[in-house]
Amino acid sequence: MALAGITADIFSRYLRYNPQDPAWPNRDRFVLSCGHASMLLYSVLHLAGYDLPKSELESFRQWESKTPGHPEYGHTVGVETTTGPLGQGVANSVGLALASKICGARVNRPGNTLIDYRVFALASDGDLMEGVASEACSLAGQWGLGNLVVVYDDNNITIDGKAELAFGENVKQRFEAYGWGVWEVDGHDPSQVRAALDAAVADAARPSLVIAKTHIAIGCPNLQDTSKAHGSPLGDAEIRLAKEAAGWPVEPAFHVPDAAYEPFKARVAEVRPAYDAWQAQFSKLAGEQKAEWDALNAAAPADVLAQLTGAVENKKEATRVSGSKVGQHAAKLLPNLTSGSADLNASTKTDIVGAPYVAKGEYAGRNLRYGIREHAMGAIANGLALGGLTPVTSTFLIFSDYMRPPIRLASMMGIRSIYVFTHDSFYVGEDGPTHQPVEQTNSLRLIPNLDVVRPADGLECGFAWAHALGRKDAPTALLLTRQDLPPLERPAGFDASQMAQGAYIVRDAEDPTLVLIATGSEVWVAVGAAPLLEKSGQRVRVVSAPCLELFARQPKAVQDAVLGTARRVSIEAGTTALWHRWIGSDGIAIGLDHYGASAPAETLAEKFGFTPEAVAKTVSEKL
Amino acid sequence: MALAGITADIFSRYLRYNPQDPAWPNRDRFVLSCGHASMLLYSVLHLAGYDLPKSELESFRQWESKTPGHPEYGHTVGVETTTGPLGQGVANSVGLALASKICGARVNRPGNTLIDYRVFALASDGDLMEGVASEACSLAGQWGLGNLVVVYDDNNITIDGKAELAFGENVKQRFEAYGWGVWEVDGHDPSQVRAALDAAVADAARPSLVIAKTHIAIGCPNLQDTSKAHGSPLGDAEIRLAKEAAGWPVEPAFHVPDAAYEPFKARVAEVRPAYDAWQAQFSKLAGEQKAEWDALNAAAPADVLAQLTGAVENKKEATRVSGSKVGQHAAKLLPNLTSGSADLNASTKTDIVGAPYVAKGEYAGRNLRYGIREHAMGAIANGLALGGLTPVTSTFLIFSDYMRPPIRLASMMGIRSIYVFTHDSFYVGEDGPTHQPVEQTNSLRLIPNLDVVRPADGLECGFAWAHALGRKDAPTALLLTRQDLPPLERPAGFDASQMAQGAYIVRDAEDPTLVLIATGSEVWVAVGAAPLLEKSGQRVRVVSAPCLELFARQPKAVQDAVLGTARRVSIEAGTTALWHRWIGSDGIAIGLDHYGASAPAETLAEKFGFTPEAVAKTVSEKL
Repeated sequence: MALAGITADIFSRYLRYNPQDPAWPNRDRFVLSCGHASMLLYSVLHLAGYDLPKSELESFRQWESKTPGHPEYGHTVGVETTTGPLGQGVANSVGLALASKICGARVNRPGNTLIDYRVFALASDGDLMEGVASEACSLAGQWGLGNLVVVYDDNNITIDGKAELAFGENVKQRFEAYGWGVWEVDGHDPSQVRAALDAAVADAARPSLVIAKTHIAIGCPNLQDTSKAHGSPLGDAEIRLAKEAAGWPVEPAFHVPDAAYEPFKARVAEVRPAYDAWQAQFSKLAGEQKAEWDALNAAAPADVLAQLTGAVENKKEATRVSGSKVGQHAAKLLPNLTSGSADLNASTKTDIVGAPYVAKGEYAGRNLRYGIREHAMGAIANGLALGGLTPVTSTFLIFSDYMRPPIRLASMMGIRSIYVFTHDSFYVGEDGPTHQPVEQTNSLRLIPNLDVVRPADGLECGFAWAHALGRKDAPTALLLTRQDLPPLERPAGFDASQMAQGAYIVRDAEDPTLVLIATGSEVWVAVGAAPLLEKSGQRVRVVSAPCLELFARQPKAVQDAVLGTARRVSIEAGTTALWHRWIGSDGIAIGLDHYGASAPAETLAEKFGFTPEAVAKTVSEKL
Repeated sequence: MALAGITADIFSRYLRYNPQDPAWPNRDRFVLSCGHASMLLYSVLHLAGYDLPKSELESFRQWESKTPGHPEYGHTVGVETTTGPLGQGVANSVGLALASKICGARVNRPGNTLIDYRVFALASDGDLMEGVASEACSLAGQWGLGNLVVVYDDNNITIDGKAELAFGENVKQRFEAYGWGVWEVDGHDPSQVRAALDAAVADAARPSLVIAKTHIAIGCPNLQDTSKAHGSPLGDAEIRLAKEAAGWPVEPAFHVPDAAYEPFKARVAEVRPAYDAWQAQFSKLAGEQKAEWDALNAAAPADVLAQLTGAVENKKEATRVSGSKVGQHAAKLLPNLTSGSADLNASTKTDIVGAPYVAKGEYAGRNLRYGIREHAMGAIANGLALGGLTPVTSTFLIFSDYMRPPIRLASMMGIRSIYVFTHDSFYVGEDGPTHQPVEQTNSLRLIPNLDVVRPADGLECGFAWAHALGRKDAPTALLLTRQDLPPLERPAGFDASQMAQGAYIVRDAEDPTLVLIATGSEVWVAVGAAPLLEKSGQRVRVVSAPCLELFARQPKAVQDAVLGTARRVSIEAGTTALWHRWIGSDGIAIGLDHYGASAPAETLAEKFGFTPEAVAKTVSEKL
C-alpha cells in the first residue's frame, strides 16, 4: 500500500510501454525486486491495460492463476523477471540496464535510435541488505548505467521488527560510494517523489537511487509502521477500517473505480506516438543497421553441432583450452553472445578474442569484467538474457556455490545463460580442498531445467557448446578441466550426433560383462582401465556421459542400448550419490565422497584412485 | 611480498599470542582472508615460533605437508580459520570479533577480564568485492565491533588486470557508511601503517579498516604492479633479480637469517607477562564466574537424546513449532548456544525465549539479528563457532542456496554450526516456486561432513536437535516444515535410540512385499498409503529416514535389517536423483523433479501426488 502511489506514478508518468505489445523491444522495464509485493505489480499491470483481467487479481495465489505469490517471468504478461529471493531483482535490473546500453551501442545509428530503454526497479530493505545487490550496484556505478533508477522503499520495517535493528548503515553514503546519484524524499509526498524521479531520469551519467521514506500499511489504523503488516494479511477488520479512513466504499470487497484507469490510459496514449514512430523506423530498417539488428537477434544455426564439432582440432589439451577455442567459434555463430568472468579470464579463457570490453561510456563491447563477484555475475547475466543477449559467465566450478540463487532463477525462467565452470575437480591440485569441487557437479545436476555438460575432450567440447547454444529456453553449465586430457579414440562409425544423446559408447566389447560409465576427465581413465580388466577375463564397454540430464530425456530404448545389461561402474571425480540411478544399487560407484587435499594433481590422482590401474584394481576388488 | 611488512608488524607489535599455547582462549586472532597468500601466513607463523618448522615451509603445497595451498583450520597450528574462497575470511573475522564480545560479556567480571581478544584480518580487493563481506561489514558496524581491525591490501591488481577496471568504488566512503573508522596509508611506509594501526586499535567503538596502498610483488623488477604476479609463481629468474635488488643472498634459495626471528621473539616475550597473568587469574577462577565459564565451555550432556526426546509433547503441529520447543530445551542444555536468523525469526522461531538480543554495546545476549543477509549469517556463524560458541542460524530452506559457501567451509573445518531451515518443501504453498525448495534437501546432503536431518514429527525433532548437539566436530542442518504434521504412531518396543540409526521402521508387516522409505512430512503420507496398498494384497513396511548420512554410516547389517529385501519406494517432496542409492535402479522414486507452483498447500499436495491415496495409486501403477 505504501508503494502504490510511487508505482502508479512510475507507470503513469515515466514508463514507456504499450500494453498491446508487451514484447516491444524498446519498452522501459519495470522490476519489482521486492517480489513479495506482487499484488502491487499485478494491480498496476491490470490498470495499465495489460492482459490481466480483474478475475486474475481475484484468484491471487491460486492454482494456475496468472497472479502467483511472487511475480514469474513468462507466466504473467508484463512481468520482466521472476523475483522473490531478495536482491536478485536489483541485480537483474543492472543487467537489463546494461543490456539496453550494449544493444543500443550495437544497433543504434545517428538519427535512428532503436534501443535506449530505461529500467525502473522497486527495492526493499532486504534487497539492499543482500550482498548480491551490493555487488551489482557497485558494478552499475562502475559501468555508469544512467538508464537505471532504483526506488528504495525505506519503511524501516522488516519481518522481525524495525529495520534499523539490523540495517543501521548509511544507505545514501554507501550508494554514493558506488558512484550513484542519490535522492532522499518523503515517499508519501508526490511532489518530492516526482522531483526526485525527474532528476534521476535526467542524470544520464550515473545510476540513481531514490530513497523514499514510507510508512508500511499506510492508512491502516492499527498496522501502519508495524512488522505485523510485512508478511501477514491485514485481515478483514483492518481492511474495513482502512477503507473507512480513506473514504473508500467498504463494499464490494474488491472494487476498482473507473477513474483509477484514467492516468494509465492517458500515459499509454502519451507514449503511443513514440511507439508508432519506433515501429515505423523499425519497418524501414535496412542495410548495415538491419544486418546488425538481425545478427543481434539471430538464433544459433541449425547445424551448430556440425559446425562446432567440425572445427575441433582434437589433441591433448585441457578442456578449458579446447572449450575456449570452440567458444570463439560459438561467439561468431551467435553474435549476441556476451562473455564475462569473475576476474578469472586468465584461467577460464572465456573472453571473446578481439572484441572490446564494456566500460563506462563504452558499451559496444562483448566482454565484461564482473570483478570478484560471482553472485552478481549470475544475477546480472539473468538481466542480460532477459534483455535479449546470450550471457556467458565463467569462474572456477567451486565458486558455482556463490552463484546458485541466480542459476536456479535462470533455470526457472527458462532463459539461455551459459555458465563456464573450469577447474572442475580435485585435479586443481595444489590449491587444496577449498578450491577443489567435489559435490558441485552433482549439486548443479539437481537444479531442474539446468543441463550440466562435462566434456571428455575437444570433440565433446564442440558438443557442449553446441548443446548450450541450441537450448534457447534454458541455461547450460559447461564443466571444464584445468589439466590436459588425451583425445578419445572413438569406434568406427561414430558420428557427432551420438554425443547429442547425452551418453554414448566410446569403446565396446562383444557381449560385455562390465560397463564403465564415466564423464569428463575420467573417460580416458575408464578407457585405460578397460584393457587391464580384460586381462582378468572381463569384456568391457566404456560409455562417455557428457550430459546426464540429456541422457535422462532419451527414450528408454536409447538408454538401454547405450548402457546394456552388464554390471555397471560409474567413474567420476566427485560425489557418488547420484550415480545409483544409472548403475543401480549393486553398481560400483567410483568417486570422491570426501574433501580433496593440497598436492600436485598427479599425486592426488594416485591417492584418490583415479589412475587406470587404480580403477581396474578397485573394480576387481568389488566384483 | 607486499604484505610481508604489515603482517610482520601485526605479529611483532600488535598481536597478543603465545606460540607455545596456540589454544589460549584469549589470544588475539589473525585471519588471512586472502588465503591465496598462504605462504605469508606460514612464514610469519614459523618466525613467530609456532610449531611449523622450516621443512614444512619447504614442502609448500605437497601431500600431507602442514602448508597446503590455502590455510586450513585444524590442519596447521596457528591457522584460525580456513580461507581461500574470497570474502569468507572477512566475515569469519566479524564472527570471531563478535564471539570475543559475547563471551567477554558473559565471563568477564570487574577486575577479572578473561576474554577481550582482538581480531586482525588481512583482506584483498576480491575479499571486499564479494557480497558476503559487504553484508558482514555492515553488521560489524551495526554491532560496533571495536575489537576488529581489517587491513585492506589495496594493490589495484587482480588476476585479470588493474582492479580499478572492475572496482572503481570509493571503499573508504563505503566503509564509513557502514559505521567503520577508516584510515588510508602508504602500505610500504611503516610509520604510516603503525600510526593507522595504533589509531585503529585505540578506536574501541567502531570496527576499523586500514587501507594500505601497496605494490604487488614489490622489489621484483619485472613483475611489480602487474597482474602476472597475482596467481602465478615469480619464476627463478625474477626471484634472483628481486634478491639482488634487495641486497639479499641469492643462495641458498631458501634462506631465513637468524635476525628475522628477533622481532617475534621480542614480541612473544613482551606478551608473556600478560599471558602468565591470565593463566594465574584463570587457575583461581571460582564461584559464579567459574560456573559461567564452565557453562560457556560445556559439552552437551551424554544423555542429550533422552533429555530432548523426553521433553517432547508429541502432537499435531509443524516441525518448525516442535523444533522450536525442543530448541528451547537445547539452549538450556548447551549454554553457549547462540541463535539468530536472517530476519525470519517470526517464521523460523529459533530465537532463545527470554534471552536478550545482541546490539552495539550490549553483548550479553544470546540472540542475533543478522538482517536479510543469509550469506554473511553463515560465514559469521563460522566465526562464532571458531570463537567457541555454538551458532544456530535460521532461514527458509530455499535460502540455504545463499549460504552454501560457508556451510561447506563449516563442514570442511569440522565445526559445530547448526542450521535450522524451515519451510522445507512445496508445502510452502502460495509463495510459489521461488520459495519452494525442490533440490535443496538433496544438494545439502551432497556436502561432505554435513548431516541433514528432516524430522517427521515432534519426537524426531527431539532426535534432530540431540544429533546436532552431539556432533561437536561437524555441522548439522535441520529441515523443518511450515505445515502441521500428525504425530507418528510407533510400534511397540520402539525406543528413541532407533532414530539414532538415521532410519528405522515405523510400521511393519510380516514378510513385507513393499518397503516405503520416507522423510519428514512424507512419513505420515507413507503410513497412510500403507493400508491402501494392503487392500490390493501388498504387505507394507514403512521406514522413516530422518538422516540418510547417519544411516549410511551404520553397519550394513543394520541397514539391511531396516530396509529388508522387498521392493523399495522412496517418498520425499524433492528431487529423486539421490534416492536410487537406497532403492536401487528398480526402486520407485516418488518425488518432485520440477519446480513447484503458487497455490494452497493442500492443492499442491494433490496436484503433485503427495496424498496417501495418490501415493498408493502411483505405487500400484508402477509395480
